Amino acid sequence: MNDEEPRWLTSTEQRAWRAHLAAHKLLEHRLDRDLQAFKLSLNDYEILVNLSETSGHRMRMSDLADATIQSRSRLSHQISRMEAAGLVARENCPDDRRGTFAVLTEHGWETIQKIAPHHVASVRQHFIDLLTDDQLHGLEAAYAPVVDHLKSLR
Amino acid sequence: MNDEEPRWLTSTEQRAWRAHLAAHKLLEHRLDRDLQAFKLSLNDYEILVNLSETSGHRMRMSDLADATIQSRSRLSHQISRMEAAGLVARENCPDDRRGTFAVLTEHGWETIQKIAPHHVASVRQHFIDLLTDDQLHGLEAAYAPVVDHLKSLR
Repeated sequence: MNDEEPRWLTSTEQRAWRAHLAAHKLLEHRLDRDLQAFKLSLNDYEILVNLSETSGHRMRMSDLADATIQSRSRLSHQISRMEAAGLVARENCPDDRRGTFAVLTEHGWETIQKIAPHHVASVRQHFIDLLTDDQLHGLEAAYAPVVDHLKSLR
Repeated sequence: MNDEEPRWLTSTEQRAWRAHLAAHKLLEHRLDRDLQAFKLSLNDYEILVNLSETSGHRMRMSDLADATIQSRSRLSHQISRMEAAGLVARENCPDDRRGTFAVLTEHGWETIQKIAPHHVASVRQHFIDLLTDDQLHGLEAAYAPVVDHLKSLR
């Protein structure tokens, strides 16, 4: 920060920024609430999806933290809660000193298969189906440089 | 949920949805981190901004919960932490039985004035300045129906 006058947001910028924040917050709240009916949070769901999409239904904890964009310590707490619920297990690989893996349990796999159709219906109802294809392409193009930039900082 | 086959997301829909999630999560993480240098969280900042924009620097707790899109109980915990940090105070209005107000303290007001230029610089660097004006208009237009829809459900 130098002593120059701050470059406050223009009204266009401010409206876009507030729309982004409000849409995300409202959506997160709603999707989380829809998942609560199944005793899952949106964070739980995201972890189950990531594990279910890998071969062997397992991921190194550090890779899972990167994939779900959270710190290792926050993920570790999250995994402990999900372990207590029987959705995942921790495994140490004796041949690999690079740490612990999270593995989907049979119950975790059944859970994601049962809940995914409900979750995708929520995502459609509250977001995707309200946008045109052009708008979806526009979002993807607009966010791509933001995601690249922010990932490069991590 | 009925027994029809789930309408899974198409690849366009999936890419847009994941871009939205990743952009938001990365951005939240980064803005939160930039604010940590000032011992504030993004939630703290949002509350300070909301209060600073009202006349009298005060809002009814229920209105503040609506404005910041969170539950009354979560806001109450948040305000307790900010009260301990001397940023806000709670006030009961004797003429008004509809509850408690949150009020910006002098220290809270000085804090938001000092930090706002740094925060806007972060928002520009990590988001706004990476998008064209057309993209900003596009985001606003895309999110407007989502925000309207989700607010109507609250």
